[in-house]
Amino acid sequence: MSGDDRLPKSSAADYCVGGPAIILVKPQLGENIGMVSRAMLNCGLNDLRLVNPRDGWSYEKAEKAAAGSDVVLNNLKVFDTTEEALADLNHVFATTARGRDMNKPVVTPRKAADMMAGQAQGGGKAGILFGRESRGLHNDDIVLSDTTVMVPLNPGYLSLNLAQAVLIMGYEWYQTQVDAPELRMGVKGETRQATKQELVGFFEHLDDCLTTTGFYFPPEKVPTMKQNLRNMFQRAQLTEQEVKTFRGILSSFMKFRRQAKDRPK
Amino acid sequence: MSGDDRLPKSSAADYCVGGPAIILVKPQLGENIGMVSRAMLNCGLNDLRLVNPRDGWSYEKAEKAAAGSDVVLNNLKVFDTTEEALADLNHVFATTARGRDMNKPVVTPRKAADMMAGQAQGGGKAGILFGRESRGLHNDDIVLSDTTVMVPLNPGYLSLNLAQAVLIMGYEWYQTQVDAPELRMGVKGETRQATKQELVGFFEHLDDCLTTTGFYFPPEKVPTMKQNLRNMFQRAQLTEQEVKTFRGILSSFMKFRRQAKDRPK
Repeated sequence: MSGDDRLPKSSAADYCVGGPAIILVKPQLGENIGMVSRAMLNCGLNDLRLVNPRDGWSYEKAEKAAAGSDVVLNNLKVFDTTEEALADLNHVFATTARGRDMNKPVVTPRKAADMMAGQAQGGGKAGILFGRESRGLHNDDIVLSDTTVMVPLNPGYLSLNLAQAVLIMGYEWYQTQVDAPELRMGVKGETRQATKQELVGFFEHLDDCLTTTGFYFPPEKVPTMKQNLRNMFQRAQLTEQEVKTFRGILSSFMKFRRQAKDRPK
Repeated sequence: MSGDDRLPKSSAADYCVGGPAIILVKPQLGENIGMVSRAMLNCGLNDLRLVNPRDGWSYEKAEKAAAGSDVVLNNLKVFDTTEEALADLNHVFATTARGRDMNKPVVTPRKAADMMAGQAQGGGKAGILFGRESRGLHNDDIVLSDTTVMVPLNPGYLSLNLAQAVLIMGYEWYQTQVDAPELRMGVKGETRQATKQELVGFFEHLDDCLTTTGFYFPPEKVPTMKQNLRNMFQRAQLTEQEVKTFRGILSSFMKFRRQAKDRPK
C-alpha cells in the first residue's frame, strides 16, 4: 500500500469505466481536492466536478496532494451551481454524517454501491454529492438527490475528511466491479499446493520416524496423537515443496541419530 | 461527513471495543500518524502501536492531523521491534499493495474483517501490520503474520496513503460490528409512511378530478393511464403528510376552476 507500487500512469485511466461522478460542493482547500483526486483514481473514478470552490480552482494547489492522479485533475470540471453539476446525471446520492429531517431513503455505502452498479447496467449515470469540509451539504443540495448515504462509523466520532469519505464510497463502488476471490492461497514461484497423496506419504514417513524414536506412547493414545498431528499439518496448507522440506528434516534427524549410534564409543 | 458533527469526545472511546490493534512499522511522518489516529477513532479502534518510527514519536507532530482523536494518541505504544509489538496478539494480518512471492493466504479487507470478528468471538486478539509510507512492509515483517491482505483497487494506481489504508481496514472491521439496515426510509419529524388506505383514497380523489377535467381520454386507454399513475405514486413512497398535501393541491385546482366558472362573464 505504498508509493512505489504503481504501474505507469497511462494504464491507471484504463480502469476508470462507468463509475459515478464525484461532486464536491463548495470545497474549501485545494489540497483536499488533490487528495480526493488520488482517492478517486485508486477506485477507478475519473469524473470529478466542483461546485463553486471557495478559493476558485487552482491546479497548482491540488497537484502535490494528488500524487500523480493527473488523469482525474485534467478531466475536472467546475460549475457555478449544484443543479448544473448534476444536469446530465440520472441518479444522485448525497452523503451526510448526521441524519437529516427529510423524507428520503437512507442507505449504507455498500447498498449505494450496489444500487449504482445496478443503475449503470440500466444505462443510468450516477453521481455522489459531498459537502464542504466544515459543514457538509446544505439541505437545498440534498433535495436534488434521490438517496442519502450515511457511513456506519463510531457514533462518538463521525468526522471524516473529504478524501476519506470519497475513498469509502469509491472503494465500495470498486468492489462491485471486481471479481477477486475473498481468500486465495498465495503460492511461491515454482511450487503448488501439495496433493493429498504427497501429504499422506509425509504422514506415513512421520509415523515411521516417531515409532522408531519411541514418541508414540502410550499405545492407547497413539490413534489420537496421529489424528492431532495430521490435523495440524492439514491446517498448515503445505505446498509440494514444503512437504519435501519436512521430509528432508525428518531424514536429517534420523541420519543424525544413526551417526550417533554408529560412532565408536 | 464533516467536522461539526461529532458528539462530545468522551463518548467516542465508548465505541472502541474489541477491535484489532493497528501496528505501523517504521512510519516516517508524524502527520501521517495523526491521520491514522483519526481514521482509527472513526472506526472504533484505539490500540495504535508504532515500531521504530523514523523520527521518533512526537505527540506534537501528530496532534494537528489527529483532529481530536486524543483517546487514540494517549493510548499509543512504541516498540523497537515488530516481534515485541505483536507479542500479545493471536492473529496478525499484513497489508500489502503488491503480491509477495510467499506461501501465505491472501484475503480481501472484507474477508479479513470477517475473520477478525470470528477470532474476537473465540477470545483471540488480532492486529494489522502496515508498512512505511515509501516501501510498505519488509518480508521479515510479513512472515510474522498469519495472513496477507490486499485491497482490490485500480491495478494501475494502487498507491494508498497510510491513513487511507488504515481507514479501509477499520471501516470493514466496523461494518462487522454494526447492525444498521442497508436501506431505511427517512421520515421527517411528526409524520409516517402513508397507509395503503390513505393512498387509495388519494388515487380515487385523483381519478374523480381527472375525470371531471376530461384528462382521462380516450376511454380504452383509461385503465392503463390509471395504472401508470398509481405505479408512479407508489414508487414515490409517500408519507401521510404528503398524501394530504397532494389532496390539497387537487382541491386547489378544482376550486380555482369553480371560481373561474362562477365568475360573471
